[in-house]
Amino acid sequence: MSEAAAVQATIGDSEFDRDTAVTRREPGVYDIDLSAGWTIIKAVNGGYLLAVLGRALADALPHGDPFTITAHYLTASRPGPAVVRTDVVRTGRTLSTGQASLFQYDEDGTEVERIRVLASYGDLDALPDDVRTSAEPPAMPPVEQCFGAEDAPPGTSPVTGSSAIMDRLWIKLDPATLGWVLGAPSGKGEMRAWFGLADGRDADPLSLLLAVDALPPTAFELGLSGWVPTVELTVHVRCRPAPGPLRVAVTTRNLAGGFLEEDAEVWDTAGRLVAQSRQLARAKL
Amino acid sequence: MSEAAAVQATIGDSEFDRDTAVTRREPGVYDIDLSAGWTIIKAVNGGYLLAVLGRALADALPHGDPFTITAHYLTASRPGPAVVRTDVVRTGRTLSTGQASLFQYDEDGTEVERIRVLASYGDLDALPDDVRTSAEPPAMPPVEQCFGAEDAPPGTSPVTGSSAIMDRLWIKLDPATLGWVLGAPSGKGEMRAWFGLADGRDADPLSLLLAVDALPPTAFELGLSGWVPTVELTVHVRCRPAPGPLRVAVTTRNLAGGFLEEDAEVWDTAGRLVAQSRQLARAKL
Repeated sequence: MSEAAAVQATIGDSEFDRDTAVTRREPGVYDIDLSAGWTIIKAVNGGYLLAVLGRALADALPHGDPFTITAHYLTASRPGPAVVRTDVVRTGRTLSTGQASLFQYDEDGTEVERIRVLASYGDLDALPDDVRTSAEPPAMPPVEQCFGAEDAPPGTSPVTGSSAIMDRLWIKLDPATLGWVLGAPSGKGEMRAWFGLADGRDADPLSLLLAVDALPPTAFELGLSGWVPTVELTVHVRCRPAPGPLRVAVTTRNLAGGFLEEDAEVWDTAGRLVAQSRQLARAKL
Repeated sequence: MSEAAAVQATIGDSEFDRDTAVTRREPGVYDIDLSAGWTIIKAVNGGYLLAVLGRALADALPHGDPFTITAHYLTASRPGPAVVRTDVVRTGRTLSTGQASLFQYDEDGTEVERIRVLASYGDLDALPDDVRTSAEPPAMPPVEQCFGAEDAPPGTSPVTGSSAIMDRLWIKLDPATLGWVLGAPSGKGEMRAWFGLADGRDADPLSLLLAVDALPPTAFELGLSGWVPTVELTVHVRCRPAPGPLRVAVTTRNLAGGFLEEDAEVWDTAGRLVAQSRQLARAKL
């Protein structure tokens, strides 16, 4: 991994943990300073934001793991202060349901809602061990044959402007989904990568919320070059991930009417399908 | 279709429209009498319930079509009176976001929340005509070679107890996904059917919310026979469906830890992928 990983970060002591830390102001209300470290161009990454909200809900609910979490992205978040207000919808023995909203102040001091989330939480460690997954892990070359932003010759990166998040993530893209970088997109709505955090922190359920929304848009391989803002993102976390890099495969099968879906699967080193997600995004054609 | 279709019902004048009709009590608050006509065993169908909530939101929001709608099923709904409370989260030019909850009273008069929904609505007719769908419609035999409950010899139906909903739906299952009926499930997590409403009403965005949750559970073809209660269901409506029967294909790829996902695709007679859905459900192993 990167040089920053010389001393490997751990779950609970890492950039990701510090930047998603929420401070309880009063029961159900949390303050957070959104980090500028998870932005691309000017946008705060949607998966990072989901992890912030997910962390507040993990504190507010009696269960700690997001089993299914849905976010609607309402207005563009900016680095800086924000407040998360949570609402406990229902608590049960094995599942609890909660809602959360993230707010920021706009220029004239008005509180504006950025994101609203609805989620059900449980305890992944309490689940039985049965696995009858018929899905197959993505066929991907070994890490050594995949490419990250750090492998690009200077000046050739297709990403212009700020890309602070690139320093926080360790992403090695499958060359089969890299045609867009060379101006020759495959035409298939596929993006695949090895994924980790640059400081070497292993994955946990909260960082899976980041992993599903961290790769370049599948739209790039479909020949689109514009922004692909997320309308809604739902993540199912199905298993606590084993240590080591994740494999993330994202697929788009229905680009139509100016919208597309992005389906992500996340596999861990133990060969478990640890998360499934789908988002609805707008496509600029 | 069924004999009830002798006079074909229309969108706006059908069993489905009457049974999802909500009455505005005050701005944002709606009364509904949940019909016993959409139950299987004692459970009110989750897709019917989603359509009820979706209809209330269509009234409360400035846009009329659910683009992405997520429901968390909290407690079991029963036929009878219910109230839907909606909340407008954000209104925009092309999309509006809203939230809704359905409540009923339990035996001691306490109001209990049954379902909570978060959704973004738009105008399907305002979308551009571009279609770059790479997904293929499900390979299915013609209707004449598929089977519905009405084709089963008396006494052989695998569904016991009330199945009122069967009289409202027109479902013809692909024989390749019917092994469970004969005690020989395929072991694949697949269920496919031609789908319509028994009174001949054509599909619209609201009835698509029903279509994605109306087939027998894929778990039956995985050899499970128990109840598969939905925790969360998200539906993306991508296109206003053309008249005529729909093709619905449901797939499960990850049955593990006592949970499974069910992904549904709905295709119309014009060959458009009109809806995509995913639900997280509990599996009784």
